[in-house]
Parts: sequence; C-alpha cells; structure tokens
Amino acid sequence: MAYNILVAHGGGPTAVINSSLCGLIRAAKESGQVGKIFAARYGAEGILKNDLIELSNAPEKMIALLMNTPASAIGSCRRKLSEADFPAVMDCLKKNDIRAFFYNGGNDSMDTCSKINQLSLKEGLDIRVIGIPKTIDNDLNITDHSPGYGSAARYAAISSAELALDAAALPIHVVVMELMGRNAGWITAASAMASRLTNCNQLVYLPEVTVDMDKMLADIENMYAEGKGLLVTVSEGLRAQNGKMLGDTGIVDGFGHSVPGGTAAYISKQVMARLNIKSRAEKPGLLGRTSMPYISPVDREEAYRVGRSAFDYANAGLSGVMVAIRADRQGAYKSEMFPVKLSEVANVERKFPLEWISGGRIQDEFFEYVTPLMGGNLPAYCDFKVF
Amino acid sequence: MAYNILVAHGGGPTAVINSSLCGLIRAAKESGQVGKIFAARYGAEGILKNDLIELSNAPEKMIALLMNTPASAIGSCRRKLSEADFPAVMDCLKKNDIRAFFYNGGNDSMDTCSKINQLSLKEGLDIRVIGIPKTIDNDLNITDHSPGYGSAARYAAISSAELALDAAALPIHVVVMELMGRNAGWITAASAMASRLTNCNQLVYLPEVTVDMDKMLADIENMYAEGKGLLVTVSEGLRAQNGKMLGDTGIVDGFGHSVPGGTAAYISKQVMARLNIKSRAEKPGLLGRTSMPYISPVDREEAYRVGRSAFDYANAGLSGVMVAIRADRQGAYKSEMFPVKLSEVANVERKFPLEWISGGRIQDEFFEYVTPLMGGNLPAYCDFKVF
Repeated sequence: MAYNILVAHGGGPTAVINSSLCGLIRAAKESGQVGKIFAARYGAEGILKNDLIELSNAPEKMIALLMNTPASAIGSCRRKLSEADFPAVMDCLKKNDIRAFFYNGGNDSMDTCSKINQLSLKEGLDIRVIGIPKTIDNDLNITDHSPGYGSAARYAAISSAELALDAAALPIHVVVMELMGRNAGWITAASAMASRLTNCNQLVYLPEVTVDMDKMLADIENMYAEGKGLLVTVSEGLRAQNGKMLGDTGIVDGFGHSVPGGTAAYISKQVMARLNIKSRAEKPGLLGRTSMPYISPVDREEAYRVGRSAFDYANAGLSGVMVAIRADRQGAYKSEMFPVKLSEVANVERKFPLEWISGGRIQDEFFEYVTPLMGGNLPAYCDFKVF
Repeated sequence: MAYNILVAHGGGPTAVINSSLCGLIRAAKESGQVGKIFAARYGAEGILKNDLIELSNAPEKMIALLMNTPASAIGSCRRKLSEADFPAVMDCLKKNDIRAFFYNGGNDSMDTCSKINQLSLKEGLDIRVIGIPKTIDNDLNITDHSPGYGSAARYAAISSAELALDAAALPIHVVVMELMGRNAGWITAASAMASRLTNCNQLVYLPEVTVDMDKMLADIENMYAEGKGLLVTVSEGLRAQNGKMLGDTGIVDGFGHSVPGGTAAYISKQVMARLNIKSRAEKPGLLGRTSMPYISPVDREEAYRVGRSAFDYANAGLSGVMVAIRADRQGAYKSEMFPVKLSEVANVERKFPLEWISGGRIQDEFFEYVTPLMGGNLPAYCDFKVF
C-alpha cells in the first residue's frame, strides 16, 4: 500500500543539498510504493505550521534541475525544535499520514531528527525517521565526510589559487581571504591547495590554532618582502590567544551559535596600520557554499546517492539512522553508503585532526583525504617562471 | 627579415588578459616574420629595468594553458609612466631591437601607449605601437566593450543569482554583496540578472546614482518584510549625496585613484543598527575578475582574437592604434575587430549610459547589450514556487 513521505531541510544550504533531494524523490518515485511526496516549506517552520508543498507531481524537468540549483529549493531555517514544539510536529506527521520522514541537515538537525524518532517510537507511530547528512563544515561524526564539503573545499582551493595568481601578477598588496567553516578548519585547509596548484606565496590560518598577531604580522611581512605578492587565507573563526574571535559579527543564530565574520577585514587593517603594506580583504562568504561553477562532481553525485539511500533505508524498514559515507581511497576513489544511528551523530562535533597540522604546516594526509572529494580535474595554469 | 616584438600588461588583471597574450603569441609565431617574442616582467616596471622574459621558445603546451590561466602570466603593475621614464623605455626598445610594442591595459595604459608611440615617431624609430584593450570596468571609449568585462559581468550575474537563492532559501538576513567597477556601474548592473534568473527579491545600487541612505534602508526594510529574503548588490563605488564614498579603503593607487571598498560592510551595519534586521556583507572582491569557472566563453574567444588582431595590425604596418570590437547583436551575436587611434581612447572614461537606468530601474536595453557578452548558457534553476 502506498505511503506518504515528508522531507525537510535544516540549517545552512550547500551547493548539493538539492541533489540529495533529487535522489530522494527519484528513489521514492521509482519504488512505486510512495503515495504523496511532501516537502516542508522552510524546514522546521513548515512542519510546525503544517505548511507543506507536494512534490509528487512536479515535472521531471524540475526534478532534474535540482542537480544544478544551489541553496534549498524547498527552503530551510535555523530554528531548533524544542520539547514544546514536538506536539505540533507529531500533529503534522499524523495529519498528512506520513510514514517516512527525512531530515537533511547537520549536527543540530540530527539531534532534532533523533528526538522525533524517539517520540514516534514512544507514541507507537509507524514512522521511519532518516537523517540525510549535509554540512560544508564537515563536522559530522562517523561519516568519512558530509555532502556539501567537497564542493566547499573545491571552492576554497580553486578560488585561492586564482587569488594567489592575481596577487602574484600585481604584487602591490597583501590579499587576505576569509573562508567559512566556523570553528573547524576543514574548508580553510583546502585553500592551502593554492600553493600546490601555483608557484605563488600563501599563508594559511586555521581556527584550531589561536593567533599570535605579532607572529602573524611578522610572517606576512617576511613573505611579502620576497616581492612576489602574497595571499593569506584565514578561517572566519580565527581566535586570538585570549580566546576572542578576531572577527565577530555580534549575531547569534537560532541554534545559539555566534556568527563569525570580518576576520579578513580585521587582519587586513592590521597589515596596513602596523606594517604599512597595502592590503585587501576579500570575503566571498556564502558564495563558498552556494557557487555552482566550482561544484565538485564527486560531491554532487554522492549527495544524490545519499538521498537515494535515505529512501531505500526507510523503505527497507530502517529508522533512527543517518546515511553515512564510507570512502575508499586505495586506487581510484570510490564510496558507499551505510546507516549509522542518529544518536551517534547528534550534537557530536567532529574536529579537524590536529595531527594533520602538526609542525605548523598542513600534512599530506589531509590532501590525500580531501583531493578526491574535490572531484578531480583541478586546474593547471601556465607558468612562465615570472613569479 | 625577422623582427622582435615586446608585450607588456598594465593595471589590474582580468580572467582573459592571458587569452589575448595567447592570441598575440600564436599570430606572431604563425606569421613566420617574428624573431624574438619578449614580455616585460611586471609591465612598465620590467620595461624600465629592461627585465624581459623571452616567450619565443615557450612550449606550445604552456601557451595553450594561457587560455585557462587568470591574472597575468607575465605580471603587471600600476605604475604610470611619466615623462622622466621615457628615456629608459626607449632604451629598452632599442636595446632589444623591438619593432613592435604591444601594451595591454585600460585607459591609463592607452595613454602611456599613445605617448610611447609619439616618442617613437619623434625619434624616427621604426616601432609599431599597438594597444590591446582590457578592463573589467568596461570604461574604454569607442570599442563596443572591453575584453574582461563579459567574464566580470557573468560572474556578477551568476554569483548574484546564487546568493539570491541562498538568501531566499534561508531568509534570516539581508545579504549585501559588493561588486567591483570603481565609479562605473557596468559590473553591478549585470548583477541585476539575478532577478531574471530567479524569482528572488533583489535591490541593485549603481555608482551613477548617489545614495539617500534613509530611502535605501526604507526600500530594504519593505522588501525584506515580504518574508522571502533579500539580496542587495552594490557597487564598491557608491557615494552618499554629499559625494563621499560609502566605503573607502583610504588607499590611493599608483595612478592617483583612491581604492574603494567596504561599501557592503557599511550598508550591512546600517541595516543591523537602524532596522534591527540581521545582515551579512559579502565581498568576493578580486574573485570577480580572476575567477575562471565563471568565465564567459565569448569574452575569452574575443580576447584571443583581439590579441591576434593586435599582431596583424602591427605586421600590416599600423601604429598608434588600439584594437576595438564592433558587435552585431542582430540575430546570433557576432563581433569583429577594427583599429582605433590611441589618442581617441587615451584617458577618456566611457560612462554607463544614464538612459539605461532611467526611472530607477535597469532598462531592457542594458540586458540586450550585456547578455551576449556573458557567453550564453546562463543557468536555469529548479523553482517549486516556494519563495
């Protein structure tokens, strides 16, 4: 007998969250076992207000376009569901006769997902609850990596190489670029690829190491003095040795996390004021998660498969699990999906391995880890040995 | 008899300046009439120091990579040549037996180019001097557009559409993006394509119209109140009604122009302080001129042909001219090159036509002008009518 399903997105979008949605919808349709496919408008907000849209009859042309559409085609939100919200959530699931609920998000969303699963069990409802991983920050536990990260890493790597070339070609300033990733250096570490793709000067600062500003400025001054320009890539979440963020927007998001930002601008001003060297601060910001021309084809394809697996797990009777990715880097890169208990990923923040940045430099292990996720075909540039 | 040529780059790089270099080198080699192909390291700086590199024997594989390499593969500078520098320039040309000199740049560089041509004529030297146009700011006179602009416009258009989708999917803030272009709105106007490619809310501010901050904030407040998020794209060169730039880095470049920047951050702070609405400021900055994944294929191909034409003009005996582009937008877009006197383009700034922004909105005439330059295949996005 056909059953209804509901999908919702939580937290910040990525370049490939819609690819997971595409995989989920396709698998549901192909199964022949699904009645209505609902999506919650703006994530948890839509569930609470019973504001759903039906995707069952969306034309295949629209479904296919999901693979090329960044952000979230069904909307998302940063609202963290509290105990007080759960009755409304249950109402929505019951009212629409939902038998499988899919929540696409990061740590916080997996926590929400886990709680909804427990509540369904407690109330004796026949609802399968499946988490779909998504975060550019790559901080979900157990899974080798999260969909969205590969594309954000590719963005960081290639855009850094391009900025490094610009800074080298016209070495009139120190270019400082700020990258996303909150308290984790996963994205900023990928920017270090710039000095592997080019022969340009680069310094990279990850949030895992607090900043000694005098030392940073001395390093910048020395490297810039070589006369071939300099790109400095910094994580938005950099902290001074007193624990204070270098850049802080003063905003606190719906999950209670303070929103970082302005780190590059801060450093750039220090370079000008204290070193008397011209400096530009660049902050592509959300472009780092929403840019499609820099998308990793591997990331997109995995996101699609993760979405398909989510449906397959539910359809096979699994519940209370998230789809995780197991990667095989021996020989040509390949990956497979496997289920992991939501309770094992909810609210656990996977840190960037400190041994990958031992001795002040990013180790080869990291590049071996990240390169296949960026999807191959990294650019080769003309090098006349001018710089 | 084989003759030597010299090429130099001036001013800020673009995504396609190296494509013009590629076209020039290929045409020179194919002619069979060129001895040595020299490039000045870091533009005028290299000429003054007689610091040249020889590209005649660069492997074809390197030459081909120029088409995929942003920034300048031979380096550039912002040094404006003065009268006092001309003896050293002439020395360099004579010493290396240069019979054709190619200078790739914008307004200021065309002025330099024009002066070198006059000096060569005065000294009775047999040197052809050809200008190759290049500027993302699109402010060169007579030519329909300048190589570099199409790619910068494509970057502005697509990255704005992507940010608009992100802002609409998670409508928790007003996203303000700053775009380059100094005092001309050519690039920022292209960002208005976002509301044609998507169904998202967007406001666009060009530097040709001074900003009434109260009015701007009221417009932002009203549009954000629709609940579907908001992208505001602003030119770095926006000015208040008192003529002061909203964002000003305080830097003055080598040509005496003050370097704008920080406009988006300024507006974003005003939105938070005065409207109590969360806001993010994004500033891709130099990525807007150096990003290759967003490159316009039409721009790249034209840049290549402009480089070829530059050599052909010199080889045919022309001098004191810049290669200009004549565009035909009737039917399928096509373009052809023609020579224009350097004196007609030197130091003349072509303004954004004010009739294209009459009535406070960007007119269709602008989009008809810019769309073919962006190189086609603009993205189509999934639209479930959520926003």
